[in-house]
Amino acid sequence: MEMLFRWPLRVYYEDTDTGGIVFYANYLKFFERARTEWLRAAGISQQHLSEQQQRMFVVKNTTIDYHAPARLDDSLEISVQVKKLGRASVNFVQEAWLLSGPEPRLLCSGEIRIGCVDTTNLRPASIPELVAAAIQHSITASSP
Amino acid sequence: MEMLFRWPLRVYYEDTDTGGIVFYANYLKFFERARTEWLRAAGISQQHLSEQQQRMFVVKNTTIDYHAPARLDDSLEISVQVKKLGRASVNFVQEAWLLSGPEPRLLCSGEIRIGCVDTTNLRPASIPELVAAAIQHSITASSP
Amino acid sequence: MEMLFRWPLRVYYEDTDTGGIVFYANYLKFFERARTEWLRAAGISQQHLSEQQQRMFVVKNTTIDYHAPARLDDSLEISVQVKKLGRASVNFVQEAWLLSGPEPRLLCSGEIRIGCVDTTNLRPASIPELVAAAIQHSITASSP
Amino acid sequence: MEMLFRWPLRVYYEDTDTGGIVFYANYLKFFERARTEWLRAAGISQQHLSEQQQRMFVVKNTTIDYHAPARLDDSLEISVQVKKLGRASVNFVQEAWLLSGPEPRLLCSGEIRIGCVDTTNLRPASIPELVAAAIQHSITASSP
Repeated sequence: MEMLFRWPLRVYYEDTDTGGIVFYANYLKFFERARTEWLRAAGISQQHLSEQQQRMFVVKNTTIDYHAPARLDDSLEISVQVKKLGRASVNFVQEAWLLSGPEPRLLCSGEIRIGCVDTTNLRPASIPELVAAAIQHSITASSP
Repeated sequence: MEMLFRWPLRVYYEDTDTGGIVFYANYLKFFERARTEWLRAAGISQQHLSEQQQRMFVVKNTTIDYHAPARLDDSLEISVQVKKLGRASVNFVQEAWLLSGPEPRLLCSGEIRIGCVDTTNLRPASIPELVAAAIQHSITASSP
Repeated sequence: MEMLFRWPLRVYYEDTDTGGIVFYANYLKFFERARTEWLRAAGISQQHLSEQQQRMFVVKNTTIDYHAPARLDDSLEISVQVKKLGRASVNFVQEAWLLSGPEPRLLCSGEIRIGCVDTTNLRPASIPELVAAAIQHSITASSP
Repeated sequence: MEMLFRWPLRVYYEDTDTGGIVFYANYLKFFERARTEWLRAAGISQQHLSEQQQRMFVVKNTTIDYHAPARLDDSLEISVQVKKLGRASVNFVQEAWLLSGPEPRLLCSGEIRIGCVDTTNLRPASIPELVAAAIQHSITASSP
């Protein structure tokens, strides 16, 4: 019943640290990139959302498990799955998979809750109807 | 019974995003800076730990709640508190407080579990005895 | 006589700052990503170069001009052009172009000189022969 | 005749890359932090400048030389020196010094030109009079 959106990315020098692995905070960037592309695929531009509807999404909670490290030049795939669409929030399940190894390996997984806020005061605000409809449609688009 | 370590920092352009607030992943950098300074205050250099004992700390889990946003030029204080010291891991409770507002305000809080690994294979490894002792000492140093 | 390599990228929240534009240091990340992909297209893996030949590339000089800002969701293209291949260094000319506007616009341009160093002591070292040959080949591949 | 402002900082995991050294783009963050603190020391808040006078500073050009690498836990000092104060721009000379080695060592040096722009359209705009006076004062404050 749920769409699984996937976004590929490469690990560059900027993503790694002196431990030889991807710095842990950077998975939050990777997750955010995938959510952005998922929104874009659903026809939603965050730039327009902000400028024309005074709405933006901010992260409210994250629960992340780091299973295994990624390294320079690794090829990753980030998944996006909506777990729950609320009036002013969306809960996601996201994963980072290593694709460049001998077999796919789960590197990092987590739940992220984003809230919709009014850009003028950063207070919670309902997700605009068309945006909620697009999200709802993208959830059910791939259901059997 | 537990030491509360505090580390001050400022919000710079690099920390913010086009939403006008600190980018959510950057709190993980702030938390990591504070843990590093807490380790340093306990007499532990991560550079030496890695080079001379083939041990490093990696983050295993994070659970973060974002309560309120920080902005450019804001003055923050990051706290570090050890919740549990294990054989090969340490659990922390950390908070980010806004100090430059009319009164202190909790911006972000969370639990972070770090694991000690062998730098040669990144497998779990026990925390070196002297390091564990230093952590244990720093925990009890300020107890009444 | 010179190959022009192009690499596309999108501007995400992580790239912007509270000024509403891409933070200036991030163009260096963009340039580095494009150089990495150019090397990869030439058959060179920096991970292998480091592990098997104890060589890595480090940046020695940059001269960057910022012409116009990029914003969230903008679609950019980064170019890579070798200006000079030396024994232990490579000089690049790189540009960042905005593609998502009414017409392509040059946002940022610069020259970057990278040096080849020995990973064990970070001292200058000659570029491995096969790597130099691959770079030389990629330069002349597209000449008429 | 010119003030030399110095700002200390530490190298954290977030600043390093898998090469074991500080990622080159991060020196631009360090330079920017030092310029921000120099402005703050001169009594100028960029947040207020933006909100109340619709002015912000953007970087127009950088010319950076990387002399030697910094590593995790290194203690650095970043200098700020005004080379030229124009009507709508300021030219800085900045350096990053390693303090934690056997003797101070110059790691990175460069010239940075920032321009004052109107926040509403990002077009060049004259530096507000009080800000220019504060910069001028800070330049001459330490002259003999």
